[in-house]
Amino acid sequence: MELLGTSIIGYSRGAETGEIFTAFDPTTGERVGPNFHSAANEEVTKVCELADKARLLYGNLSGRKRAGFLRKIAENIEALGDTLLERASLETALPTARFAGERARTCGQLRMFADLLDEGSWVEASIDHAIPEREPLPKPDLRAMLKPVGPVAVFCASNFPLAYSVAGGDTASALAAGCPVIVNAHIAHPGTAELVGTAVINAARECGMSEGVFSLLFSAGYEIGQGLVKHPAIKAVGFTGSRRGGRALMDIAAARAEPIPVYAEMSSVNPTFILPSAVKERGDAVVAGLHASVTGGAGQFCTKPGLVFVPGEENPDSFVSKMRSLMTSTDPSPLLTAGIAKSYAQGNMKRGGEVETFSANSVDELNGFAVNPSVFETKAATFLSAPDLADEIFGPTTLLIRSDSHDELLEIARSLEGQLTASVHGTEDDLEEYADLIEILETKVGRLIFNGFSTGVEVCPSMVHGGPYPATSDGRSTAVGTRAITRFSRLVCYQNFPDSSLPDELKEDNPLAIRRLVDGK
Amino acid sequence: MELLGTSIIGYSRGAETGEIFTAFDPTTGERVGPNFHSAANEEVTKVCELADKARLLYGNLSGRKRAGFLRKIAENIEALGDTLLERASLETALPTARFAGERARTCGQLRMFADLLDEGSWVEASIDHAIPEREPLPKPDLRAMLKPVGPVAVFCASNFPLAYSVAGGDTASALAAGCPVIVNAHIAHPGTAELVGTAVINAARECGMSEGVFSLLFSAGYEIGQGLVKHPAIKAVGFTGSRRGGRALMDIAAARAEPIPVYAEMSSVNPTFILPSAVKERGDAVVAGLHASVTGGAGQFCTKPGLVFVPGEENPDSFVSKMRSLMTSTDPSPLLTAGIAKSYAQGNMKRGGEVETFSANSVDELNGFAVNPSVFETKAATFLSAPDLADEIFGPTTLLIRSDSHDELLEIARSLEGQLTASVHGTEDDLEEYADLIEILETKVGRLIFNGFSTGVEVCPSMVHGGPYPATSDGRSTAVGTRAITRFSRLVCYQNFPDSSLPDELKEDNPLAIRRLVDGK
Repeated sequence: MELLGTSIIGYSRGAETGEIFTAFDPTTGERVGPNFHSAANEEVTKVCELADKARLLYGNLSGRKRAGFLRKIAENIEALGDTLLERASLETALPTARFAGERARTCGQLRMFADLLDEGSWVEASIDHAIPEREPLPKPDLRAMLKPVGPVAVFCASNFPLAYSVAGGDTASALAAGCPVIVNAHIAHPGTAELVGTAVINAARECGMSEGVFSLLFSAGYEIGQGLVKHPAIKAVGFTGSRRGGRALMDIAAARAEPIPVYAEMSSVNPTFILPSAVKERGDAVVAGLHASVTGGAGQFCTKPGLVFVPGEENPDSFVSKMRSLMTSTDPSPLLTAGIAKSYAQGNMKRGGEVETFSANSVDELNGFAVNPSVFETKAATFLSAPDLADEIFGPTTLLIRSDSHDELLEIARSLEGQLTASVHGTEDDLEEYADLIEILETKVGRLIFNGFSTGVEVCPSMVHGGPYPATSDGRSTAVGTRAITRFSRLVCYQNFPDSSLPDELKEDNPLAIRRLVDGK
Repeated sequence: MELLGTSIIGYSRGAETGEIFTAFDPTTGERVGPNFHSAANEEVTKVCELADKARLLYGNLSGRKRAGFLRKIAENIEALGDTLLERASLETALPTARFAGERARTCGQLRMFADLLDEGSWVEASIDHAIPEREPLPKPDLRAMLKPVGPVAVFCASNFPLAYSVAGGDTASALAAGCPVIVNAHIAHPGTAELVGTAVINAARECGMSEGVFSLLFSAGYEIGQGLVKHPAIKAVGFTGSRRGGRALMDIAAARAEPIPVYAEMSSVNPTFILPSAVKERGDAVVAGLHASVTGGAGQFCTKPGLVFVPGEENPDSFVSKMRSLMTSTDPSPLLTAGIAKSYAQGNMKRGGEVETFSANSVDELNGFAVNPSVFETKAATFLSAPDLADEIFGPTTLLIRSDSHDELLEIARSLEGQLTASVHGTEDDLEEYADLIEILETKVGRLIFNGFSTGVEVCPSMVHGGPYPATSDGRSTAVGTRAITRFSRLVCYQNFPDSSLPDELKEDNPLAIRRLVDGK
């Protein structure tokens, strides 16, 4: 498939007049063709108007029809074959095998939501029957269910070119809820975005969806994405990226005449507590697992363990020494973009001014966007006195903090900002001894992990990929798993409506055979 | 019970040093004793710190213990007897019979949440079992449930001194979720607030709750409430009041270092569509119902029908003439505060410059905060050209808009802002003929009513008391009904935790016997 480099504007393609940009090969830092054209401001208006027009038609389609659309998207993505994996690998320097996995996850998510729609009970249908004879006032018939919020703007993630980009989790859950989606492509992998965008728009055509149900905008800067969030037709935003970028969108959305919800997944250092018994009983396994978790995907996972609390002993056989030696002997790896590589270098330099730093020195020259893994060490007291040591550095690095004091760990836990995850390594007895630590961590995170590492996010109903700010903008919701559909829907109640005018989900004889709460039961 | 006029600061009382204010008797406009003392800024800090300290202890109590606390609050409120009804009536000029009903609703809400906690399934427990042998990677054990978000600030509503004030819906749902609550009393009914606040704090003591689970702040101005919303310990806000007030709190919350959710119920004109068949078949009943709905509680309900679309004929027997005659012969009624009466007068004067006005002229002198009911009339074309005609005027007034055009009604519906409710009066055939109108209204409201009036909000699982901005700040949630508990809770996931360290709700053998989603079923 030839890449055109233009935005997808409903069932048309965008103009070739906007600012030009390209992808890069992170292993060399060189440009990769073709040229991509930034969308024009009028095109932002156009896609929003199309989405607004499609809103009622798409939102009122049956769940089964929307399910068919989602399944067709998955099929079309798979039909792209190796072309997709190779392009994604070229634009990110991540291996094609990784993208085979990520593609499976992406298509799995789409089909998971399709199954949810086919089953139908996700709408939380609730019925309270009338009691006409009730005193002093009759009780009316009331029936409620979830309906779509309206058009959603989705911002692609740098680090998940498939699973959290054009047809990723946000798009899948918004389309499943019945919301038209406008995607803002990530500048780092526009070719991947165009391939997947084409798969989506072809699926829309093949399934007879109204124009406007999906559009894809390219942009070299921030203006197009910000214009999208400002447009009155947009009713919610999904974003995965930096804290600065997410907060900027939150602020724009909050300042609108009609403020709208932003689901931004931003920043997490995923504190990891390694208790003495874990070091004693299986220190080598833990250090190997930690190293893999910190360096996997070149450290570019939102759940990378960025703060690791370890027992304080300092000797050649200590956990700290072993981790240091593993990290400093790890090969450099290319990061996704020049900007990410620069931020990594700046973050390392700043942190290096405050605490001990160890990084591989064996490589004299780094190619493209490659960086050396690094590891930092300090004591809990230093950490507590320098709050910016808890800032995220995106890339293959972590900070080891030595402490032997239970109370010090509690104080640190209390000082932490919101996180996607926290992990504790130890024994079951430790969990009881540190129940107070767990209680504090519960208030800080979306997911608590025992004897495991935070990277690797299972897609299933019980997964919570969220957490208090700044991990996300909205700690009440999850970006992964079926519950994500509720982020793009809201309850509507029908009072005393005749059966013939009710949605099928609320009709008296339950034609869709879904689970419903009837008279509170 | 003697009123002290001081804030409730955990288990202590506030200082008598802050700015003094009193309640007023709206029928005379005269001050009513005793003096109330505004809280000091240090007291804001103090109650937030107490709430933060109580957060873990209260949040980790069993549902049954929290249920006992809620029931005790209801008992204590009932034990206040006529003292409460009389004080509320004195401060608002609403009859004691109204407060007998509102008290029943308030205590009913508290017991509804207590029942929900006793049953226990509200936590949305979800379990996905491990699959250790899965390829390429083992599936971990994942279990999720709702946990409290942390301390909540609740702002009392002017128009519901019991049901949406100190121990009203927001407080009941936040306490039920496991969140400590700090209430900002409404300046219009401080005596009622102190009585109920005492009932709550006594219940806390009697049930052995940690200090900080509840506090009540008095304030003469906005500073104390704004300070509350700014304090880092506060994790969510409940508010019922004006659009200006709600938006101010939304903006403060969005600008915090850690933005927090605000659940503000603000402004709704509850568009009511009266179709020709309704006028023909039962016009007199509809006009009588509409008049009662517009003037009930002196028009001070958030669901008052403020925009009424009627068929366009103009003759002495028309719907419009009858409504005009009913409204202009209605006695004046005192509004809740001098400020509300002034806003009502200003709103009437402004609207009167744009469209035809009719109001009772029979009363020469109005006492206290009393105002005359009024009714405005215009044509759809005028309405469409003057967007501020859709602004809410709080009080006994409504705007009748004449139109005979289906298309014009659709255009108007599209132009509306978010609303709590919309109502349609007609036949079942009308509902089919106007299915396009209903589809548009669905995107604008929380509740759609057929052949009924929007005032009167049933408390039950299917009720949705919410709607897109500016009806509320967060159209995804409801302020009334059991689902309100989810506004103050968020999902937390436990990965590979041993059974002994899991909350009871997630233990393998389901000791609480609650409904759970297990492996997606």
